[in-house]
Amino acid sequence: MAFHLLERDRDGARSIADALNETLSKVTRCRRCNTFSEKELCDICASPRRDPDTICVLETPADLESVEMAGVYRGMYFVLMGHLSPLDGIGPEELALDRLMELIGEDSVKEVILASNLTAEGEATAEYIHQLLADHSVKVTRIARGVPVGGEIEYLDHGTLSQAFAERRII
Amino acid sequence: MAFHLLERDRDGARSIADALNETLSKVTRCRRCNTFSEKELCDICASPRRDPDTICVLETPADLESVEMAGVYRGMYFVLMGHLSPLDGIGPEELALDRLMELIGEDSVKEVILASNLTAEGEATAEYIHQLLADHSVKVTRIARGVPVGGEIEYLDHGTLSQAFAERRII
Repeated sequence: MAFHLLERDRDGARSIADALNETLSKVTRCRRCNTFSEKELCDICASPRRDPDTICVLETPADLESVEMAGVYRGMYFVLMGHLSPLDGIGPEELALDRLMELIGEDSVKEVILASNLTAEGEATAEYIHQLLADHSVKVTRIARGVPVGGEIEYLDHGTLSQAFAERRII
Repeated sequence: MAFHLLERDRDGARSIADALNETLSKVTRCRRCNTFSEKELCDICASPRRDPDTICVLETPADLESVEMAGVYRGMYFVLMGHLSPLDGIGPEELALDRLMELIGEDSVKEVILASNLTAEGEATAEYIHQLLADHSVKVTRIARGVPVGGEIEYLDHGTLSQAFAERRII
């Protein structure tokens, strides 16, 4: 792409650079949910139609986009902008967990949904936040682990099968 | 493979044919759990170390193999040898559901785990068996639906994300 721009489309390169610069100067973080936003308060945090009872904790703005696209959730968000990773020097401070705790301290919040990834780092991050909330009266939930929609038993990895059996539900 | 055998390995073809014939004559169905077995009662059904409290209902012997490999389950099985599929002419009779009901009627059985696939046909089959058991006192469970181990929110399909949110668990 770089060679193409340099060889044949120097105007295009210039407008990409301008667009990037404009984006960098305009896009900051929402002061409430920490996701990318052009305004001080992002559209979701500013909306009166979102349910302030529930905060869904996610790793990245891309995750937020994914959950919004699924159209399954009507509450608020908090975006960590990463996950705990001591080897990379990412601890609780880098994830703005103090701001998350402040948010959860608000009266309206009744449930915190931990929706970090089901990777090792995501699980550790969820567990860490869970422990931080041990003294809170707020309900803490974790997104369900198990077989994905359309999943076939024969082709599942052992870990997922174990989870699916261990967390089976009465129907 | 057929051309290779015919051109260069006619002896090999003959021994494959013999092996298949031998398998066909030896392997029948376990009279209890309906999976493939060389004996009247398969090794799992005959084992005194398996827990007779629980029956796990699966679609195929390959599914049974998968669950055994995961090493997560110590109860008994019942293999449907398929799933409900009216368009293919597969109804309750073809799945030996009468034999499953007989098995569940035994005193020792306290839980039935429905572990058919999470495909449309698998879900319909699970729901059908669930309805058949409406009058039974036995506990009926379904394997957990949700995000597979290692799953990342950003890359999940909408259906799985919806399930993971709808069936989130208090931790």
